[in-house]
Amino acid sequence: MADTKEQKEPASLLSLLAPRSVAVLGASDNPIKAGGRPIDYMQRHGYGGRIYPVNPKRAESKRAEIQGLAAYPDLAALPDSPEVVIISVAGTEAEQAIEQCIAVGAKGAVIYSSGFAELGEAGAAQQQRLVARARAGGLRLFGPNTQGVANFATGAVLHFSTMINEEAPQDGPVAIVSQSGAGSSIVYGGLRRKGIGVRYMVATGNEADVTAAETLRAIAEDDAVRVMLLYVESLRDPDVLAQAARIAHARDVPILAVKAGRTRAGQLTASSHTGAMAGEDALADAFLRQHGILRVNDFRELSEFAQIFAGGQRPRGRKVVAISNSGATCVLAADAAESHGLDLCQFDEPGTAALRAVLPGYVSARNPIDMTTALLGQPQIYGQTLDAVAAQRQADLIFVGFPIGGEGYDFDDFSAQTGRFASASGVPVAVSANQEWVAQAFRAQGVPVFDSERSAMQALALLAEYGERREAAQAAPLPAGVPAGVPTHAASAHALDEVRSLAELAAAGLPVVAHRLCHSADDVRRAVAELGAPVVAKGVSPDITHKSEHGLVKLNLSGEAAAVAAFDEIDQILRRMEVRHGGVLLARQQRGAFELAVGAHIDPAYGPVVMVGQGGVLVEALQDVQFLVAPFTASQAREAIGRLRIAPAFAALRGMEAVDLDQLAGMLVRLGDWMVAAGGTVHSVDANPVIVARGAVAPVLVDAVVIRAGETA
Amino acid sequence: MADTKEQKEPASLLSLLAPRSVAVLGASDNPIKAGGRPIDYMQRHGYGGRIYPVNPKRAESKRAEIQGLAAYPDLAALPDSPEVVIISVAGTEAEQAIEQCIAVGAKGAVIYSSGFAELGEAGAAQQQRLVARARAGGLRLFGPNTQGVANFATGAVLHFSTMINEEAPQDGPVAIVSQSGAGSSIVYGGLRRKGIGVRYMVATGNEADVTAAETLRAIAEDDAVRVMLLYVESLRDPDVLAQAARIAHARDVPILAVKAGRTRAGQLTASSHTGAMAGEDALADAFLRQHGILRVNDFRELSEFAQIFAGGQRPRGRKVVAISNSGATCVLAADAAESHGLDLCQFDEPGTAALRAVLPGYVSARNPIDMTTALLGQPQIYGQTLDAVAAQRQADLIFVGFPIGGEGYDFDDFSAQTGRFASASGVPVAVSANQEWVAQAFRAQGVPVFDSERSAMQALALLAEYGERREAAQAAPLPAGVPAGVPTHAASAHALDEVRSLAELAAAGLPVVAHRLCHSADDVRRAVAELGAPVVAKGVSPDITHKSEHGLVKLNLSGEAAAVAAFDEIDQILRRMEVRHGGVLLARQQRGAFELAVGAHIDPAYGPVVMVGQGGVLVEALQDVQFLVAPFTASQAREAIGRLRIAPAFAALRGMEAVDLDQLAGMLVRLGDWMVAAGGTVHSVDANPVIVARGAVAPVLVDAVVIRAGETA
Repeated sequence: MADTKEQKEPASLLSLLAPRSVAVLGASDNPIKAGGRPIDYMQRHGYGGRIYPVNPKRAESKRAEIQGLAAYPDLAALPDSPEVVIISVAGTEAEQAIEQCIAVGAKGAVIYSSGFAELGEAGAAQQQRLVARARAGGLRLFGPNTQGVANFATGAVLHFSTMINEEAPQDGPVAIVSQSGAGSSIVYGGLRRKGIGVRYMVATGNEADVTAAETLRAIAEDDAVRVMLLYVESLRDPDVLAQAARIAHARDVPILAVKAGRTRAGQLTASSHTGAMAGEDALADAFLRQHGILRVNDFRELSEFAQIFAGGQRPRGRKVVAISNSGATCVLAADAAESHGLDLCQFDEPGTAALRAVLPGYVSARNPIDMTTALLGQPQIYGQTLDAVAAQRQADLIFVGFPIGGEGYDFDDFSAQTGRFASASGVPVAVSANQEWVAQAFRAQGVPVFDSERSAMQALALLAEYGERREAAQAAPLPAGVPAGVPTHAASAHALDEVRSLAELAAAGLPVVAHRLCHSADDVRRAVAELGAPVVAKGVSPDITHKSEHGLVKLNLSGEAAAVAAFDEIDQILRRMEVRHGGVLLARQQRGAFELAVGAHIDPAYGPVVMVGQGGVLVEALQDVQFLVAPFTASQAREAIGRLRIAPAFAALRGMEAVDLDQLAGMLVRLGDWMVAAGGTVHSVDANPVIVARGAVAPVLVDAVVIRAGETA
Repeated sequence: MADTKEQKEPASLLSLLAPRSVAVLGASDNPIKAGGRPIDYMQRHGYGGRIYPVNPKRAESKRAEIQGLAAYPDLAALPDSPEVVIISVAGTEAEQAIEQCIAVGAKGAVIYSSGFAELGEAGAAQQQRLVARARAGGLRLFGPNTQGVANFATGAVLHFSTMINEEAPQDGPVAIVSQSGAGSSIVYGGLRRKGIGVRYMVATGNEADVTAAETLRAIAEDDAVRVMLLYVESLRDPDVLAQAARIAHARDVPILAVKAGRTRAGQLTASSHTGAMAGEDALADAFLRQHGILRVNDFRELSEFAQIFAGGQRPRGRKVVAISNSGATCVLAADAAESHGLDLCQFDEPGTAALRAVLPGYVSARNPIDMTTALLGQPQIYGQTLDAVAAQRQADLIFVGFPIGGEGYDFDDFSAQTGRFASASGVPVAVSANQEWVAQAFRAQGVPVFDSERSAMQALALLAEYGERREAAQAAPLPAGVPAGVPTHAASAHALDEVRSLAELAAAGLPVVAHRLCHSADDVRRAVAELGAPVVAKGVSPDITHKSEHGLVKLNLSGEAAAVAAFDEIDQILRRMEVRHGGVLLARQQRGAFELAVGAHIDPAYGPVVMVGQGGVLVEALQDVQFLVAPFTASQAREAIGRLRIAPAFAALRGMEAVDLDQLAGMLVRLGDWMVAAGGTVHSVDANPVIVARGAVAPVLVDAVVIRAGETA
């Protein structure tokens, strides 16, 4: 659980992944059983520490050996204290095993056993007992219900994946951390088939104690790791993940993450409009983006796109040059560049001249470079072209497409040239190939290969995006996290009426509409004089949410007489309805080009969250909203606004000024900061509409509801 | 070129793909040269017709043999007339070769030679001479600059792809037609690696005569073909493609198409707003959708998704059941189903009961079905689960995920059960697997296998979409095509003023705003009395496009006095500007919930096209538009409206009525029909805004410009 993170130094997790000794409770002589695999793997894959198989049944027998190692009846019988213990026993015996681990002073346990939280409430309670005991005894737990943890640098393979036999391990720059055991194996297999080395393969299982985020944070400290891959279905400690990203980015190590599982019960969030639109997926997107973590879709993409980061080349920008021996691939690459936001740049004059010097006359020196048959029997033209492009700084990124190879094409040569070029120039290259033997030639040189033009171009775009996001994330604050003592149920919250809501938001520094609360016709006359016509009149009552449906909103009141008449009418309706009567609010009628909705709420996982989107009555219908996890910077807010579908309309056009996005972004930042400062006392804010005009003017909140935590004051 | 299609019976193309005899001009003894490959391929892959190698140099030699066949010095020397001639000579000799072909009465030629339109204008002129000569001589041409055409049923492999040696041919249900030669080979390779049989592999090259669409139309008549795959970069005869789709759909044969190349010069279209927003990509999308052709992204997807159609199973709807031995795959499959619009249905009570009878107690009878370890050593549970799902009609589609296999899993058994199940039940199954040996087991049984949950789910969604689109397309009209005599340049067109534009559109049956043209204050007074206030006044002149920027539009005129004042002001502005003065148009001011833009123009490839989208001043900024190629049905129009991003706002919500989409769709249909009937005399229509209110009312065109073809009348 997330709250253990302050009790332990994260660095200790890294040492648990490189233990000096490993005991296996439930050790098996059979190397294809869960209790036998890690012993087999460690012995075969160079583990230098001590392995202690423990099995009361085997140890009773004469030879007292398991897989050639001395076997012991229990942990107490070991010659010294094991640093980490694999618990491969029935779930019902796990608690006793934990006691044994603590008794002998083990530092960590990897619990293969299942039968815990994954089975429901009774199992969860049992799991809670395990973790409570382990914490009291200073023992860290992986699992239960995990396939284990593996370190292929030290050979400490405490993992029972069958994939390790199918694809031989090799230490390398990639770390895999997955809540799913199958997931860790699938990604491992995908990488190894591409010839990419893997240092860590960690499955966190039920995460009773150690989480995936905490593991990533620890591994981020390992200098040999250059890419980290994450699979999670539920992210319980996003703040730890943000810390992991911060550490990783300082070393220029990207994190690629799959966040699966798009639905969840949202009892706390569903009570506010903002919360109701904040699906798990939208918040995960916002959170990962803010912290520079690249979200991909599935296991395949994790291993596929890891390739492009493993080599260490980084682009300066989004200019891409495409080279292929096929015209069709040139066309598809151009389409793919466009759809992934890369710039298929035009060559400048010196660049064109340099290319002309290299290319045969029938190949045009334009981007994409369609080599047609130029490389048949003349592989040197390929390298010369790459060099000319790099020397002239024509490309930040290079796409090479060999969709089809046959006689006359020397792929050993092309691939060697590509590998040399990437290392020497530092320019990232992605290759697209359809034939396995062609792909293999490039992989053998450490060149990333993809099975379509789109996939290769997407990988290059991801590389460019990483550079942009990393920079932004390093400048951004860490998340505030979920405030302590936040009520887990919406019932323990109360809505403020509109006057109090606007007052709180104004005090928070948000621009609210000029308004007056009126209790009499005289108040109204004074208010109209002060505010200036036209005005809007609204009945105030904390008991009514949809005021206009009850005739409690009067627009376009052109002067004093109309305003007084509206006051009288609203006053009578409120009395007739027998609700709390908070008076009548008179506000200056705002004109603007857009109606936005702005809101905030406390998410049970991410803490304070701010929303901005198209507002008015269509807010739910259009679902054009973006979220930000607080606190955040003005540039992150601007970026979120820019992702709205309506955003292109904010630009200057047809002689109209642009919307002042700095003021809008600033308002969002202040709202987020206020939510953070409130420390959980504000449950949610819904402001809709927020009137946004063109030109250098502030947006104006004209209607808002603040819901405070706790029972009605 | 498209215009040859009426001169020839398309069926004759099919016979050219199965010639009784083939001569090879430029024949080579070397089987890896272009002039040698087809001879080698035909001899080795069962061609039963006569092969005549022709090469003056070889034929002079003593043995006069090429690859073991009698060689001839020229076509005239052959013992009989070859049905088809492969022309594998230098481009400069191609014209003479064509003459020879005609002289000996050949029916078709496949021109490998390059050096024509692909090199620019001079080559294009040379190509035009070839085709003119061929047409006069009754000779059909494939190419030039083509890799050729292959028929693997008859062994008539007139194609020089190296891929035929890499992946052995096998006749089967798939036809490949590609403008790109490399493309035809890549897709062939992709299919053959999956064990899928290919009947036709046709590259159309420069398409001097025979186009890809025409080839598809011919092949659609071959009963053995069950899936057709198309790659095009430029689609010059969409009407022929629509005919091909009609023939194919009658036999339930899907067409999967890649339309690559997203940009093109648009000199004709750029003159109208509608045309300016009609990118090639958007029109291709609209056209392919209307004709039930499934658009995919690249070569990889062509061969990947062909799998799911080859088996012939078709779904009844979009209900999908997912089954996996991995919990993570269940979660990813659920996410993928949602994102591809499939319904991960809940089991009904009898269905749940039937599954409970089959599944072990620890496996929940819910969708997705997470088998956990249930299938280890018990493969029969898998088949029983499939049968229970099918017997209870719980699924239209089945997803099976085996992301990881190892000891204890019998994939020979699983795959055989899957193949049997799909054949017996008719329910389509897609498998996702990450290990090649697992995938191979399923492929061997003809079961489609994909390398990610998302890809498998996307394939199933494509299958469902095909069924829906096929039905809609069969009920839809064929395209009108480009009217004869349409000017190719926008200069030869003239804009009608607003009064005439509205009059034309009203005559076309479109609902235009009630309005009067006024030339005097008296006219204005009469108009206000007839129309009722408030009204709008606009200056009329064909010389001014942006009226409001010149103060020529006055809104919210509350009565006679205001209207007369506005008339006077506009009248003076028009006189001051010294433009043509068409009077002042008074119109009833329309109120509505939405401002749409509606337009139409003649596209040089697709003919009359209708646009609908978000309008007002933001039309270009928001780019929320959809296109329809005329003529089209009301249901196609409704579907296009439904694809607008604004569409969810048209529904009934918050106590407001829904927009009457039938009236809006009807208006689009009439506009399309009118454009067709105009036969090219109307160049474009721009109506913006079109005011759309909620409830059972017609949309109202309040501002429109009709541009007529030809110089000013």
